[in-house]
Amino acid sequence: MAAHSPFPSPWQADVLDDPVALTRAMVDIESVSGDEKEITDAVELALRSAPHLAVDRVGNVVRANTNLGRAQRVILAGHLDTVPLHDNFPSTLDGDLLYGCGTSDMKSGSALALHLAVSLPEPVFDVTYLFYDCEEIDAEHNGLNKISQSHPDWLAADFAILLEPTYGLVEAGCQGSMRVVVRIEGRRAHAARSWHGVNAIHGAAEVLRRLAGYESRRVVIDGCEFREALNAVYIRGGVAGNVVPDLCEIDVNHRFAPDRTAVEAEAYLRDFFEGYHVEVVEAVGGALPGLSATPAQDFITAVGTAPLAKLGWTDVARFASLGIPALNFGPGDPNLAHTKNEHVEVTKIVEGAEVLRRWLAG
Amino acid sequence: MAAHSPFPSPWQADVLDDPVALTRAMVDIESVSGDEKEITDAVELALRSAPHLAVDRVGNVVRANTNLGRAQRVILAGHLDTVPLHDNFPSTLDGDLLYGCGTSDMKSGSALALHLAVSLPEPVFDVTYLFYDCEEIDAEHNGLNKISQSHPDWLAADFAILLEPTYGLVEAGCQGSMRVVVRIEGRRAHAARSWHGVNAIHGAAEVLRRLAGYESRRVVIDGCEFREALNAVYIRGGVAGNVVPDLCEIDVNHRFAPDRTAVEAEAYLRDFFEGYHVEVVEAVGGALPGLSATPAQDFITAVGTAPLAKLGWTDVARFASLGIPALNFGPGDPNLAHTKNEHVEVTKIVEGAEVLRRWLAG
Repeated sequence: MAAHSPFPSPWQADVLDDPVALTRAMVDIESVSGDEKEITDAVELALRSAPHLAVDRVGNVVRANTNLGRAQRVILAGHLDTVPLHDNFPSTLDGDLLYGCGTSDMKSGSALALHLAVSLPEPVFDVTYLFYDCEEIDAEHNGLNKISQSHPDWLAADFAILLEPTYGLVEAGCQGSMRVVVRIEGRRAHAARSWHGVNAIHGAAEVLRRLAGYESRRVVIDGCEFREALNAVYIRGGVAGNVVPDLCEIDVNHRFAPDRTAVEAEAYLRDFFEGYHVEVVEAVGGALPGLSATPAQDFITAVGTAPLAKLGWTDVARFASLGIPALNFGPGDPNLAHTKNEHVEVTKIVEGAEVLRRWLAG
Repeated sequence: MAAHSPFPSPWQADVLDDPVALTRAMVDIESVSGDEKEITDAVELALRSAPHLAVDRVGNVVRANTNLGRAQRVILAGHLDTVPLHDNFPSTLDGDLLYGCGTSDMKSGSALALHLAVSLPEPVFDVTYLFYDCEEIDAEHNGLNKISQSHPDWLAADFAILLEPTYGLVEAGCQGSMRVVVRIEGRRAHAARSWHGVNAIHGAAEVLRRLAGYESRRVVIDGCEFREALNAVYIRGGVAGNVVPDLCEIDVNHRFAPDRTAVEAEAYLRDFFEGYHVEVVEAVGGALPGLSATPAQDFITAVGTAPLAKLGWTDVARFASLGIPALNFGPGDPNLAHTKNEHVEVTKIVEGAEVLRRWLAG
């Protein structure tokens, strides 16, 4: 379908027709958050090569619509950025396993959307294919977040699927996410007479002891079990090599089940860190599973397995906040996301493409 | 004595004649380690204004000698740098207390040396006045350390006094100092599924617990009690805001009594941090009190109080390693060194000048 387009795609038709080859081609374009121009250019050109799509772009966010006058519109969405490389670029193929940064989270998912966009000219629903940047960093940079404010009409739909890694399962809802800074204060002194000071880094022992002893709360909603998490993600402190430090700061990431609001999660953390100074840096609520909507039920039937809880915060919460039922479905293994050993099973990519095609082709 | 010199001092004769005014003038020249050129220029010009002194300079190290043919030569030495400012610059005077960065450690001491150098043309011993840079940072930059290797003849003497803060007491010997890095390793994972990883920052809890529970060993040598210290001075860890970190590093500073060698102190630390990876970054041995030498006994008599142990590592260990008996004596309060509240008692500066003059004038 790309042969006669005035916008030649950087990828040949045989790559766009093969979701595995397309995943690998997308992984091999480096796109750590903030550096997505090259991959967005490639995706845009591939979409423009398909004459049945209406394509728009704002910054590094690209939308491609079918406009067939169908009764319902669905969204297939994926981000194009990755976490920093970790000796895992470019991709390598070992039997059924494709290794590399972004293979699981989530270029295999975004490749499915791009593959279907260019290869399925007449889906049974109208479809909005959406690709965006900066999902792996602070929410203020998130392309979907920005477009939901500047171009909310781009997100008008009856149902949305976010192609985040779920290992081919339907993962419903998502947990909320909160970042706080815990501050431990002390008093400076010369390190040779430290008993005249109070060592703030030593004072962090109790905060870290509580974190190390943390036990996840587990909540079942709509048959989906959500498991919370609480982790120090950064620690810093120190003045000079011969000075007892007067400040130690710990950045803590909290994932909370969608039965709690961000306000309730904050109250929990203030209680957990009682006796210490806690500042909330970022907070986003989760999304309840919301499985009762008809399009969701149709899709679950197409997949054929029972839905599970989504533990990571994902942009389904942004769709949920706009009143659009949304769920996560992608070929990657979420347990491998952000790891050095990140990979995706080729079989899962092929099966994911088949499920989506079965559903969209009717 | 500066009136007719071809090298006009930046400080008037009335300032050089008054050790309190001179302390304040030296404090008000900012000289954080690595930035000592301006104060060294001023000290050099002041020394060159005194015709009875032979002055040499290498980098930011200045030496001024009397050459009177006396039977014995003594050294008065002080560093010109300070730790980083901490809202305590420039100086302020409040009654008997002079506040500011370097007032105690150790511009009041170095001011005594400069005051005596220019105002006492015929001491009973020949005197080497020595001023140097970069004492508050890594030993490789230390001006006295460098000059002891490039110009060891500058340090030829029978006895040395280092004018580090001792609150007007004689502090003998010094403790050794060692810096190690303790590494805690983990395994990365996505922060929403942290149970698949091992959080290295949480793993630091046990290391910090041991540090918080540390109890000083105390040793009495030649009647002087040495009290050891063990402190985290830096901590760092973290990969990204949504990643369970796989590495946490703690820089630890250890001060050990001079009855232990650096090798013995290292063995102690490896035992203390058993189960963790420990790397020694820097190690310098201490100095035994060495109070039996005749010039030391003479000086102790001039001061009139019993000597105590020096807890901080000081450059007396460099003199000791060259076979030169050395002790610490200065007007500053060592407990105030490196603190925001650093200050010196004007009375102690005046008394210190009187003690040194009584001893050197005979």
